Amino acid sequence: MTFLSDNAASACDEVIAAVVAANAAQPFAYDGDTLSARLDAVFGEYFGTACTVFAVSTGTAANALSLAAMVPPYGAVVTHREAHIHVDECGAPEFFTGGAKLLLVDGAHGKLTPEGIAAGLASHRGDVHQVQPRVLSLTQATESGTAYTPDEMAALGDYARSRGWRLHVDGARFANALVHLGCHPGDISWRAGAAALSFGMIKNGGMSAEAIVVFDQSLADDLRFRRKRAGQMPSKGRFQAAQLLAMIESGAVSRNAAAANAGAARLAAAAGSRLMHPVEANELFVDLGGHSESLRAQGFKFYDWGDAGSGEARLVVAWDTPAAEIDALARAIAALPEAIAALPS
Amino acid sequence: MTFLSDNAASACDEVIAAVVAANAAQPFAYDGDTLSARLDAVFGEYFGTACTVFAVSTGTAANALSLAAMVPPYGAVVTHREAHIHVDECGAPEFFTGGAKLLLVDGAHGKLTPEGIAAGLASHRGDVHQVQPRVLSLTQATESGTAYTPDEMAALGDYARSRGWRLHVDGARFANALVHLGCHPGDISWRAGAAALSFGMIKNGGMSAEAIVVFDQSLADDLRFRRKRAGQMPSKGRFQAAQLLAMIESGAVSRNAAAANAGAARLAAAAGSRLMHPVEANELFVDLGGHSESLRAQGFKFYDWGDAGSGEARLVVAWDTPAAEIDALARAIAALPEAIAALPS
Amino acid sequence: MTFLSDNAASACDEVIAAVVAANAAQPFAYDGDTLSARLDAVFGEYFGTACTVFAVSTGTAANALSLAAMVPPYGAVVTHREAHIHVDECGAPEFFTGGAKLLLVDGAHGKLTPEGIAAGLASHRGDVHQVQPRVLSLTQATESGTAYTPDEMAALGDYARSRGWRLHVDGARFANALVHLGCHPGDISWRAGAAALSFGMIKNGGMSAEAIVVFDQSLADDLRFRRKRAGQMPSKGRFQAAQLLAMIESGAVSRNAAAANAGAARLAAAAGSRLMHPVEANELFVDLGGHSESLRAQGFKFYDWGDAGSGEARLVVAWDTPAAEIDALARAIAALPEAIAALPS
Amino acid sequence: MTFLSDNAASACDEVIAAVVAANAAQPFAYDGDTLSARLDAVFGEYFGTACTVFAVSTGTAANALSLAAMVPPYGAVVTHREAHIHVDECGAPEFFTGGAKLLLVDGAHGKLTPEGIAAGLASHRGDVHQVQPRVLSLTQATESGTAYTPDEMAALGDYARSRGWRLHVDGARFANALVHLGCHPGDISWRAGAAALSFGMIKNGGMSAEAIVVFDQSLADDLRFRRKRAGQMPSKGRFQAAQLLAMIESGAVSRNAAAANAGAARLAAAAGSRLMHPVEANELFVDLGGHSESLRAQGFKFYDWGDAGSGEARLVVAWDTPAAEIDALARAIAALPEAIAALPS
Repeated sequence: MTFLSDNAASACDEVIAAVVAANAAQPFAYDGDTLSARLDAVFGEYFGTACTVFAVSTGTAANALSLAAMVPPYGAVVTHREAHIHVDECGAPEFFTGGAKLLLVDGAHGKLTPEGIAAGLASHRGDVHQVQPRVLSLTQATESGTAYTPDEMAALGDYARSRGWRLHVDGARFANALVHLGCHPGDISWRAGAAALSFGMIKNGGMSAEAIVVFDQSLADDLRFRRKRAGQMPSKGRFQAAQLLAMIESGAVSRNAAAANAGAARLAAAAGSRLMHPVEANELFVDLGGHSESLRAQGFKFYDWGDAGSGEARLVVAWDTPAAEIDALARAIAALPEAIAALPS
Repeated sequence: MTFLSDNAASACDEVIAAVVAANAAQPFAYDGDTLSARLDAVFGEYFGTACTVFAVSTGTAANALSLAAMVPPYGAVVTHREAHIHVDECGAPEFFTGGAKLLLVDGAHGKLTPEGIAAGLASHRGDVHQVQPRVLSLTQATESGTAYTPDEMAALGDYARSRGWRLHVDGARFANALVHLGCHPGDISWRAGAAALSFGMIKNGGMSAEAIVVFDQSLADDLRFRRKRAGQMPSKGRFQAAQLLAMIESGAVSRNAAAANAGAARLAAAAGSRLMHPVEANELFVDLGGHSESLRAQGFKFYDWGDAGSGEARLVVAWDTPAAEIDALARAIAALPEAIAALPS
Repeated sequence: MTFLSDNAASACDEVIAAVVAANAAQPFAYDGDTLSARLDAVFGEYFGTACTVFAVSTGTAANALSLAAMVPPYGAVVTHREAHIHVDECGAPEFFTGGAKLLLVDGAHGKLTPEGIAAGLASHRGDVHQVQPRVLSLTQATESGTAYTPDEMAALGDYARSRGWRLHVDGARFANALVHLGCHPGDISWRAGAAALSFGMIKNGGMSAEAIVVFDQSLADDLRFRRKRAGQMPSKGRFQAAQLLAMIESGAVSRNAAAANAGAARLAAAAGSRLMHPVEANELFVDLGGHSESLRAQGFKFYDWGDAGSGEARLVVAWDTPAAEIDALARAIAALPEAIAALPS
Repeated sequence: MTFLSDNAASACDEVIAAVVAANAAQPFAYDGDTLSARLDAVFGEYFGTACTVFAVSTGTAANALSLAAMVPPYGAVVTHREAHIHVDECGAPEFFTGGAKLLLVDGAHGKLTPEGIAAGLASHRGDVHQVQPRVLSLTQATESGTAYTPDEMAALGDYARSRGWRLHVDGARFANALVHLGCHPGDISWRAGAAALSFGMIKNGGMSAEAIVVFDQSLADDLRFRRKRAGQMPSKGRFQAAQLLAMIESGAVSRNAAAANAGAARLAAAAGSRLMHPVEANELFVDLGGHSESLRAQGFKFYDWGDAGSGEARLVVAWDTPAAEIDALARAIAALPEAIAALPS
C-alpha cells in the first residue's frame, strides 16, 4: 500500500493501446509522422487557442527547456522557494538557460502572490550587478497540493506582464488542479498570460511523454532547436505523440486526475485538523504527530516531509491507487491517537 | 518502399511486449524499479565486464552526456569530419560539455586512423590559446556504413590512451557493426579502450530508449547527476529499462541487426561498382549516376547525399524492411543504365 | 566627501610607478615577461607556501574562475546569503561554472559557522535530484565588515574538508581583515584549508589587477585554460603583474589597508551604539535613525543599506580617504540627535 | 631584435600619460566616472554614427562577448578557417555563447568572399538537426595580413544581411587596415553593415583596454549585462576609459598603425617574391626557403608558421619597433640566397 509518489503509477489503458498502435513503421522519422503532425491541433482545441506542442521525455526537460526559451543567461526566474525547479531538478534550469538564477520568494501553502513577490524582491536592483527577472514560474497544482484559482493566476499574470516578465507554468499536476477548479484549461494557462506550460502527463497515467505547450508562438522556433540540441527529439516521435494524443482525445487526462483527487479528498476528510495545507489536488501534507512509524507498521509506505523530526508526512494518491488501499489508510489515519512527542533527534 | 532511415522503423515484438509487461505499478519511481535494477548486470554479462548503464531517450543525449563526462569545457573532442556529433546533433555536444570544441579529422570511408589524426592535428598546440584534446570519438558503424575492425579500434584506443585522451564510441549502429564483424561486443568497446559507448537500440528495433554503457566506472557518478540535470531521468524508468533488457536478453539486438545487414548486402551486390564505400552495416552510399529520379519514379524513397548534383544517394535498410521491397530495389538498381550526365545545377 | 565605495579610490604611488616602469617592451607577450615570471615566487614568499598566481581584471572574474575550477556544473557552492558572489556579480559564478547553484546560508554579522551551515542544509539530500555541495565560499572580510578569526576559518575549513568540499575565499578586502587580525596571511588562507583565494588589490590601492592565489596546485592547470578562455589573459601581462608585485613587495598592501581600517575605526568610535556589526575592516554599517538626509546635506556621500526606509547606511573608508573628511564625518555622526521616526514609505 | 608579436609592444606616451592622469579618485566606481561617460560620444564622432562602447581587458573578451550578444546557443558563427576566434581563443566564443558552433570557410589570403561562403555552406541545412548561422565574423586586417576593401566588406555585409545574419568584425588590427586603405573608419564597419566591432587598441600602443564598439544599438543592453557577468566590468573603469580616449583623441591610433605598417612595407619590399600574401597591415608571411635559422643566428626573433618544415615564417612589426632593427632585418632578408631544401622532418 504505497502513497510514495504518483511517479511510479501505471500507465492507463488508453496510453498503452496508443503506444502499441503507433508501432507500425512510417516513412519519416523524428516528428515527420502522422501522429506528431496532429499534436498542435488537438491541444489547440483542448486549450481553445493556437499553440505549439513539443513532446519531451521528462517534466524536468519540459520546465528547463521552456525557461531557456524565455530568459537570457543574465536573467532570473522568480519562483516559490519550494518550487520543483529549484529543489528537485538538479540544477536543470541553470543548465538549460546557460546559468540564469532562480530568485526565491515565500508564500503560504506553496502559492505566490503579487504582494509576496514584491516584498521578496524589494531590495532587488535593476543595475548590471544583479541578474534581471524575466520570468515568473508558478507550479499548478503547487508543491503543497494547492491550486491557484483562475483569478489568482490572472493576477500573477498581470503582475508579470506589467514588469515585462513572461509567465511559465510548471503543470506537473496541471490536470489535478484543473479538475479541482472545474474551470476551462485556458483559464489557468494562456488566459492568465502563460507563455508556456509544462503539461504533465506521466504522473497522471502517461508512460514516457510530457508536453510543452507553447502559447507565445514567438518562442516556438527557438524551442524547436533547443529541444533537438537537448537530446529531446526522439527518432521515433510517434511513440511520444501517441501518448499525448491518447490522454487528451480519450478524456483520460481528466478522468485519471479526478480519480486521484477523489482519493486524496477521502484521505483529507480522515486527516481533518492534521492537514497542513488545503487539499486541492492529489497530494496531502499531514502532521502525523509522532505516529509515522505506527502507520508504516500497518503496511503504508510514504515519505516523511519537512524538517527531520517534524512528524510531517506527504501522502500522494495516484490515478490508479486501489480504493481499498485508500480506504484502509483513511481508517488508519482516523484511528490515530493524539499527537505524541517526537523522539529527540 | 522507403529506404530513408532506420529511425522510422517499427519496434520489434519483444520490445513492445516488454513495455506492456512493465506497466504494472511499482512502489518506487525513477530508477527504483526492479527492471532498472537489472540493467548493469545484464549488460555486464553481455559485454563481459562490469559496466554502468544509463537509459536515455535519444542517441544525441547518449553521445552528448557521455562526452560531457569526459571533457572539460576547454577541452576538445577529436572526431571524423562527418561524425554525427558534429553534423546532425544541433550542437548538443557543445551544449552538454559547456562549450568544448570538436576538432575534425578526415579519413577514408568514414574511418579515423592514428596517422590521419596525427596529420590532422599536426599544427595543434598545447598552449593555453588552444583547446586541448581529451576525447577521441569514433562512430561504429561509421557514418559511411563501414565498420572498424577490432584491431583498428584497438589501435585507435592505444593512440588515445597514449595521449591521455578517453575513447568514446557512438554506437548508433553498434549492433550492425558487431554482426558484420562477428566478434565479441567487448572487442569493439572496452577491450579497445572505450570509456563509454552510446549503444543504439532504437534504430535496431527499439522504441524510445538508448543505452549509455559506461566502462570507465570513474565516470558513472558524474553521469548519474548529469543525466538527471539534462532531463533524461524518466520518472517511470521501468519503461526504458524494459526495452533495453528485452533487446539484449531476447537476442533481438543481434537478430534485428543481422536482418538489416543482410538486406544491405543484397542491395550492395546489385549496386556493384556504384558503391562508394564498403557495405559493412545496413547503409549503402551509391553513385546513381543521374538516375535518382528514375528510381523514385518507381516508388523508392531515399535521400540524396553528398554535394548537390553529385548523383549520390544513401540507402538504409531497417531491421523490418520487407524483403520484397529490398528485392525490388535490388532489381531496379541492377537494371539501371550507365551513368547519365548530371543536369547543370 | 565620499564614503560610497573603496572601488573608486585612487591607485597608490607604488602601483602607478610600477605600471609606468613596466612599459618597456619585452620580447614575449601574454605571461612570457619577466614580471609575470616572478608572481608565484613573490606571493609564495608572502603566504609562506607554494602557490600559483593568476592576474585577472576584476574581483568578479577572480571569484567566478576560482569557483569554476572547483565545482562541477551539477555541484553547489555553499555561501552566505549576503555573499557578493550571490548578490552583486550578475550571475558570474553560474556563468563560469556552467550553471552550478549557490546554496545560501544565514549567519550573524555576515559570518558563516559550521552550525549555521549544518542547519541551513539540514534538508538537503545527496540524491541525483539535487545539486551537490562541493565548495564552501567565505568572504574575508565579510560583506558586513567583520573578519573571521584564524580559528573561525580553520573550523570552517575543517567542516568543508570533512565533507569533501573545497574552501574558497573571496578576499576582496583580504588585506583589511589581515591587518585587523594581526595574523600571518597563511593563517586565514591555506592554513585554514583554502584551495584558492581571490586576493583583492584594486580597492586597496591597486589599479586594474586582482590576484587569484591557488594553494591547491591540482587546480592550477585547469585555471590556466579557463582564464584564457574567459578573456582574462592580457596580451601585455606585465602591466597586471607589475601592479600585483608592487602591492606585495612595497608593503603597500598592508599600509593601505591599515590606513583604511584606522579611518573606519575612527568613525566607529563616533557611531557607538548605532553600529549594526563590529567594525573589523574598512566598512561600517550604521543605523542613522532617520538622519541620513541630514548627513547628506552636510556634504557626505554614502549609500543607504538594508530595506527601504530602514534608516541604515553603509560607510566605506578607502585607503586614500582624506583624514579631514573622516574627521568631519566622525564629528557629524557624533553630533546626530536621537533617532527620529522614519518617514512612512 | 624581435618580430614575434605586436602583443608585446610598449604602450605609447599618450596612453601612459592618460592612465597616470586618470588616477585622481572620483566619487563613483565602475563606469560612473567622467572618463567612461565620454566614451560613446568620442567614438561616435570618430565613426560618424551613434555607438555604444564597452571597454574590456582583452581582444578575446571583446570578440566572445560580441558574438554572445548576436547568436543563440543553437546558432552558428560563419568565419574563416584561420580566424583567431577559432584558432587562438581557447574556445572563448563557445564559452560565452553557451556553445554555439563556428562554421569554417576557406578563402585565399585570409579573406572570405560571398562565393566562398556559399560554397562552404552548400550542404548546410536549415532543419533542427543542424546549428543555424546567425553571424558572419570577419577579421580586419585578416590573419594573413591583408585588408578587406570597403567594397569587399560591403559585399559581405550585404550577403549576411540578406540571410538574416549579423556582421561581426574582429578588429584586433583594425587601425592597421584603416591606415592601409585610407578610408573612413565607418567604411569598414557600420557602413558595411557591422553590428559590432572589436576595436583593437592594445597591440597598437594601448596598455590594457580594448573597445567593443556596438553599432546595432539593440545589442547594447544585452552586452551591458553580459560584460558584468563575464567579469569584464572593472571597478575603476576610468583607467580603461582613459586609454581608449587617449588613443582616439590624440590621433595615436592612426599614427601608431601607420608606423607599424610602414615598417612592414619596408620588409615586404625586401622580401619580394618570398611573400605569401599581400602586405596590407603590419604582418608579413614569408617563405624563408630553409634560411630561418640563419636569420635567427643574426639575432632576429620570429615565429615559424604553417606546417612543420614548411620554411614559412611570420614577421610582425609593432608600432614601436626600432627603425634600425627593421632596416637590419630588411637587409638580412634581401641578402638571403635562393631557397635550400628543407631538412627531412
